Amino acid sequence: MKAFQDYYPENLAHCYGCGSKNDHGHRIKTFWDGEETVTHFTPEPFHTAIPGFTYGGLLASLIDCHSTGTAAAAMYRQEGREMDTLPAFRFVTGSLHVDYLKPTPIAGVLEIRGRVKEIKGRKVVIETTVYAAGVATARGEVVAIQMPENFGAASV
Amino acid sequence: MKAFQDYYPENLAHCYGCGSKNDHGHRIKTFWDGEETVTHFTPEPFHTAIPGFTYGGLLASLIDCHSTGTAAAAMYRQEGREMDTLPAFRFVTGSLHVDYLKPTPIAGVLEIRGRVKEIKGRKVVIETTVYAAGVATARGEVVAIQMPENFGAASV
Repeated sequence: MKAFQDYYPENLAHCYGCGSKNDHGHRIKTFWDGEETVTHFTPEPFHTAIPGFTYGGLLASLIDCHSTGTAAAAMYRQEGREMDTLPAFRFVTGSLHVDYLKPTPIAGVLEIRGRVKEIKGRKVVIETTVYAAGVATARGEVVAIQMPENFGAASV
Repeated sequence: MKAFQDYYPENLAHCYGCGSKNDHGHRIKTFWDGEETVTHFTPEPFHTAIPGFTYGGLLASLIDCHSTGTAAAAMYRQEGREMDTLPAFRFVTGSLHVDYLKPTPIAGVLEIRGRVKEIKGRKVVIETTVYAAGVATARGEVVAIQMPENFGAASV
């Protein structure tokens, strides 16, 4: 089964968090699971906060990319379109908030689950939770904005 | 001149974002600059969002570690203690919020600047801004919590 990220257009598939074309990145893979979305990710031993626990910046990154992927998938679903149809939806992060609920063990697979809180115009709000061995350890909210065609062109 | 992170005790110096003992990590170095704190960081070419721009998860990570380092330095300063005196202060992230103001070019050195908004008991609130070529591109707020002696022991 193809993940959300497998549908990203090639010129938008270089993201360090979720781009299939980034050889150094996390290359997360996100799928629907009913009304929620799910990503599984195994931290590397060096993704350390203090020994034994996962680095919070990695968790923020996973929440970020899981959520922007979920936003795209939610927009396709709302329009009743398959993800391989054009025009392609791709979202950037307007804001990211993470509450670190408890230390996240670094051993084992993390489960990242998202749900759509709101779709309003080009904006999608996603709530995403990180679970370690079934325990919620971090909870994030991402305001994802549909990427403009000229992303970045006028801003730099 | 030693950076804040050079004073972290060895058992707390393995963080992927700021630990001097983490060979794979970012190893950021943060210093006082008057009442503000400053870190400089050059993204790697693979720290990409879309080609030409810096990955937002990296920016969140830099804001996170810059801010927890700033929290520790601020607590020493408030107590009138040098950073090489014991007991060592080390902070974890309670919450992280980042507003992405505009795309961050990946070429060149980023400047990350922090200021202390509040110190209250074991909690320090830091506002941290990322600048690319002098332009603010992301702004974060971190609630940093002084690490308990038994960090992680009871939570997993």
